Amino acid sequence: MNAPQLNWLPATDLQRALRDGAISAEELMNACLARVDEVEGQVQAWTYLDKKHALAQARARDLDRAEGRALGPLHGLPIGIKDIFDTCDMPTEDGTVLHAGRTPGYDAKAVAMLRAAGAVIMGKTVTTECANYYPGKTRNPHNPEHTPGGSSSGSAAAVAAGMVPLAIGSQTNGSVIRPAAFCGVYGFKPTHGLIPRSGVLKLSRTLDHVGVFARTIGDTALVAEALVGWDADDPDTRPRAGIPLCEIAAQEPPLEPLFAFVKPPVWDRTESETREAFAELVEELKAHIVEIELPPLTGEALDWHRVIMQADMAFNLEREYEQGRDRLSQPLCEQLEIGRAVTALQYQRALARVPQLVAGFDVMFERCAALITPSAAGTAPPGLDTTGDPSFCTIWTLCGMPALNLPIMQGGNGLPLGVQLVGARDTDAQLLRTANWLVKRLAKD
Amino acid sequence: MNAPQLNWLPATDLQRALRDGAISAEELMNACLARVDEVEGQVQAWTYLDKKHALAQARARDLDRAEGRALGPLHGLPIGIKDIFDTCDMPTEDGTVLHAGRTPGYDAKAVAMLRAAGAVIMGKTVTTECANYYPGKTRNPHNPEHTPGGSSSGSAAAVAAGMVPLAIGSQTNGSVIRPAAFCGVYGFKPTHGLIPRSGVLKLSRTLDHVGVFARTIGDTALVAEALVGWDADDPDTRPRAGIPLCEIAAQEPPLEPLFAFVKPPVWDRTESETREAFAELVEELKAHIVEIELPPLTGEALDWHRVIMQADMAFNLEREYEQGRDRLSQPLCEQLEIGRAVTALQYQRALARVPQLVAGFDVMFERCAALITPSAAGTAPPGLDTTGDPSFCTIWTLCGMPALNLPIMQGGNGLPLGVQLVGARDTDAQLLRTANWLVKRLAKD
Repeated sequence: MNAPQLNWLPATDLQRALRDGAISAEELMNACLARVDEVEGQVQAWTYLDKKHALAQARARDLDRAEGRALGPLHGLPIGIKDIFDTCDMPTEDGTVLHAGRTPGYDAKAVAMLRAAGAVIMGKTVTTECANYYPGKTRNPHNPEHTPGGSSSGSAAAVAAGMVPLAIGSQTNGSVIRPAAFCGVYGFKPTHGLIPRSGVLKLSRTLDHVGVFARTIGDTALVAEALVGWDADDPDTRPRAGIPLCEIAAQEPPLEPLFAFVKPPVWDRTESETREAFAELVEELKAHIVEIELPPLTGEALDWHRVIMQADMAFNLEREYEQGRDRLSQPLCEQLEIGRAVTALQYQRALARVPQLVAGFDVMFERCAALITPSAAGTAPPGLDTTGDPSFCTIWTLCGMPALNLPIMQGGNGLPLGVQLVGARDTDAQLLRTANWLVKRLAKD
Repeated sequence: MNAPQLNWLPATDLQRALRDGAISAEELMNACLARVDEVEGQVQAWTYLDKKHALAQARARDLDRAEGRALGPLHGLPIGIKDIFDTCDMPTEDGTVLHAGRTPGYDAKAVAMLRAAGAVIMGKTVTTECANYYPGKTRNPHNPEHTPGGSSSGSAAAVAAGMVPLAIGSQTNGSVIRPAAFCGVYGFKPTHGLIPRSGVLKLSRTLDHVGVFARTIGDTALVAEALVGWDADDPDTRPRAGIPLCEIAAQEPPLEPLFAFVKPPVWDRTESETREAFAELVEELKAHIVEIELPPLTGEALDWHRVIMQADMAFNLEREYEQGRDRLSQPLCEQLEIGRAVTALQYQRALARVPQLVAGFDVMFERCAALITPSAAGTAPPGLDTTGDPSFCTIWTLCGMPALNLPIMQGGNGLPLGVQLVGARDTDAQLLRTANWLVKRLAKD
């Protein structure tokens, strides 16, 4: 292997090389840091990156191997952490000056699981303000004049730019799928409750999901598998056996999958090239795809999501609003003020609709392996003032269904155009397997 | 046995006599119906009672025995059902003209469990309007000019008047403990989530509890044990093994219990005879009781309860309000209107405080077997316009802790004065055991 390119290799390959001793974690980290030196000035994916500390962790992992200690499934692999996950050895600032210099002193459960699996916590990646809409400093690695998407902007951009093979982020509306689509990487938001959330900035118990970023489906499965588990402090997780995501994702589906192409309620916001690209995709998949029209009621789901998200944010960010609203962005303040005025009746009405919506989709999944739909209206829009429109992700987030961005298309401007696959709740492994089938199939044609 | 007195015997005795064939379910029902003929004109505990149907059920149970079928733990025992529990063979009108003539066609889960245990569903007992505050027609069996309490007015009064040995009701604030105290029977509200609630008029998922009425602790345990279970349609129940309430309730405690006498935040509403009675009780129990002062914050719990109850009622009775508010009582309308204005922020703030409150009490339960506190401000107040003040039950309902009314004291007016025991969550059997110890101990002195 040629050391300077290690940072671009799939994590699954690196995992084997690290275990075999073909490469060291230190070499790998040096390759990643070299890439940081090259592109971080332009991309600005990191909000905290202490090279010495990253290298020290990598060397500690190498020592584990040298001394014959048991190696975890992520042994020696660098990973970027969105800066809303608490870390015991780095600040966690949540993208707001209100939390500047905050050092929680312990790890979020998900970070602790990554460390236990042998990963090297490389640094903290840029989030939008409080994982909401107001952008951070990160730029799209494919074109610095375009947004990387958000709110997990830095995680998506760092993986896309080759600075780190893996990263984690979060999604309350479209914050994993959208930046993954805009930056051209895989972004996976598993079923609600699959990955522990304690120690992560809380916006909404109902809507918050932890998600992962990687450059292959195998890499996606590798990180996600290490993160599935029960968390005594996250009431939506459940004690359960681990899920063999890597093994199942790599299998052939028992039947060739049928996809349901669905136009979301915001279809009229799509760019013309998105519509053309999906028409071609449908044409290409022919016998493997049916178009299913969503009932008009589905459009209301965006309102339910908005009511829940605004009300929950007003509750969870109450202290920030009360004590520091003058240092929050105007758009966030407005969100919080709308949220404070939501009535408990509106809130409960919205929550009560979700199970009905999920049940409606479950009927579709009896026939189809996955829904296929755009990840966003089009490629990353120009400008750095917004992170783009999350509405193409809203319904799947509200329903807690697993969603995956496939970076398999391109716009006329050369920027990535994302395809989103959505599966039934608790069929995360099958969704990755279906995605693998699709990507191989399209590569063949 | 002298047949006309069967209606007054403990259900545990009746249970044995029914199993042995010493009495028939038909004889027992006839005794109960004879008592109904005597007192129902004055007490008015029933909203639906079809004597023929009650007798037919009793005969069907006798036939079960005659034909050698397996007999359930409540074989042949008559039970009254608060008219907010759906029943497949009787109307369920929820105490409101809006639901007049409503025949749901299926049993609430709790009713189905009682039937499966062999009980005879004798009839439906009077509830206040929508299990809220506006009174039904029932009068206190000890003095018809006084309220029986509510909202489970008919269940408490029917058991107290000897018309039925057992009844079920519900509590969202003080609707089991208060009528039990005013009518002078045992009233038991187990831990939140212990008894299934599907098919019961829903006011608040957080606050609604099913409870039972009986004339002995053994009878209380007998019914409650038959009602513990999992309900796929009640998200707060859990799959769990049955709890041997009868067996444990009858045991001697491993250690002589220590009680914590607590004055609730509304202590200044107690009548002077209540204060004197509790002072005597504390004197009597000496080494077995300590007074524990609740922190001032506890007073706020009444506000949290109010916010949750009003907001949840506004949500759960939205259809009634939208379509028939002109036929709801003015007080209920006002409650619903206040509830509709509660913000999601106030609502979530209130909900978030509950676990902290429970944790605070858990510390007290490390030392004490049970809290001891008044069930109400005093004896049943005169008049039939209100059902009395539920505030002496509010905190324990909010915390979902098991509570039991002991009908062991009397006021100067000859009306019952209730003692309330409260246990830690999920120690229902131990609470009944502790109650047994206390009642025996006080009888001895």
